[in-house]
Amino acid sequence: MSDLTCDGFLGGRLRIAQPRRGFRSGADAVMLAAACPAQAGQAVLELGCGAGVASLCLGWRVPGLRLVGLEAQGDYADLARRNATANGIEIAVVTGDVARLPVDLRSQVFDHVIANPPYFLGGTAAPDGGRAIARREDTPLAAWIDVALRRLVPRGIVTLIQRADRLDAILAALTGRAGAVTILPVAGRAGREAGRVIVQAQKGARGPLRLLAPFVMHREAAHGGDREDLTEAASAVLREGSPLTALFAKVS
Amino acid sequence: MSDLTCDGFLGGRLRIAQPRRGFRSGADAVMLAAACPAQAGQAVLELGCGAGVASLCLGWRVPGLRLVGLEAQGDYADLARRNATANGIEIAVVTGDVARLPVDLRSQVFDHVIANPPYFLGGTAAPDGGRAIARREDTPLAAWIDVALRRLVPRGIVTLIQRADRLDAILAALTGRAGAVTILPVAGRAGREAGRVIVQAQKGARGPLRLLAPFVMHREAAHGGDREDLTEAASAVLREGSPLTALFAKVS
Repeated sequence: MSDLTCDGFLGGRLRIAQPRRGFRSGADAVMLAAACPAQAGQAVLELGCGAGVASLCLGWRVPGLRLVGLEAQGDYADLARRNATANGIEIAVVTGDVARLPVDLRSQVFDHVIANPPYFLGGTAAPDGGRAIARREDTPLAAWIDVALRRLVPRGIVTLIQRADRLDAILAALTGRAGAVTILPVAGRAGREAGRVIVQAQKGARGPLRLLAPFVMHREAAHGGDREDLTEAASAVLREGSPLTALFAKVS
Repeated sequence: MSDLTCDGFLGGRLRIAQPRRGFRSGADAVMLAAACPAQAGQAVLELGCGAGVASLCLGWRVPGLRLVGLEAQGDYADLARRNATANGIEIAVVTGDVARLPVDLRSQVFDHVIANPPYFLGGTAAPDGGRAIARREDTPLAAWIDVALRRLVPRGIVTLIQRADRLDAILAALTGRAGAVTILPVAGRAGREAGRVIVQAQKGARGPLRLLAPFVMHREAAHGGDREDLTEAASAVLREGSPLTALFAKVS
């Protein structure tokens, strides 16, 4: 993996090396980190951490976490380790597959698990193998959620970001094992259907499902130019590292 | 059932007798009817039709439907028949239970099934038996959806309105039997979480799930007064009988 770019995240607060071609993290990873309510002293596992963007954003916002990342592709795992070191954030990156969890991870439990599972089912091979693997769903979504729930402490919290059209599969995998399911639709623009959902649930809990008001990324109707048009809320998350956790917090 | 009120629906276009105390239909039934894309000449079954509000709203908007309503409580079924006659809309109201579908219904199929299943699980008996039965979930939601799907023609469409926190149960009951699931969150006010969902799905279809932008009922933040504060869109549906079907229609 020689052809890398170095990209700023959180308004340049993080500098992250990623392959120029291949799977590149973006807003989804940042949103995932923003939604995770981890607190100092807690342990967080990221399944499929890629180059480490989500874990690094989370580690930047919440110092004092124990961060562990699992990544199946060795070159991405290496990148995640380098990115962690370069940004002064400690992450234990384990090379291994969600479908065949490494033995040392099987004995560990976490307060939080976060994941941005692959978005595409099977499909044709992309020119870049890394991107193809990262975006393709070789391991079914249900298996990602199963592993996440197994690695959580009782009442631990899983947070996922995924294509909105997989909401049914996500909810099915959580049923009977996690409760207080909270769904944050993420829409490109106000009034549009959701492209992504962030789903958070608590292991072993029984609270009711909540369907939150959408989080809107862009300010205006689509336009030809490429000037910045993030909403204020999206800009706060993507450029300033603000959390989304208040949206998920239970109304007392 | 002697103590009745006569209420205007669709801005007075329908006059509907309902018990003063007991289960009374309101905006949910009107929204359900508005979401159903039935067309003249088609057959529509309403499961749990109560006093007939949803079927009557649909029959008013789309002339030339064959409307059948199933209602377990005889006095509500009688009311539905009276309301149909009084409004000049033909509905065949069958007295019977979703959990023990009357034999003559078992041999019929429909292009559309609509339902507003009970919102509360078990619970204590209310002073009014009718209301208690109508709001309580004696028959699990999954059974309502099972019956709906069985009574649909291939590619027939089921449309439900339900509490938003039951979304997981609705999706689970649809999984593998219906596709092109489209979810319309219904929120009391902009920025609030959804209180209701309208879920529409097509029997035997394979299209992707869609999570639409919320439909917002009220215009402003909660206030003390009781003046009308419906959004323009909600007013169009509730006062004018406008359809919601365009929201559910596939974007080509």
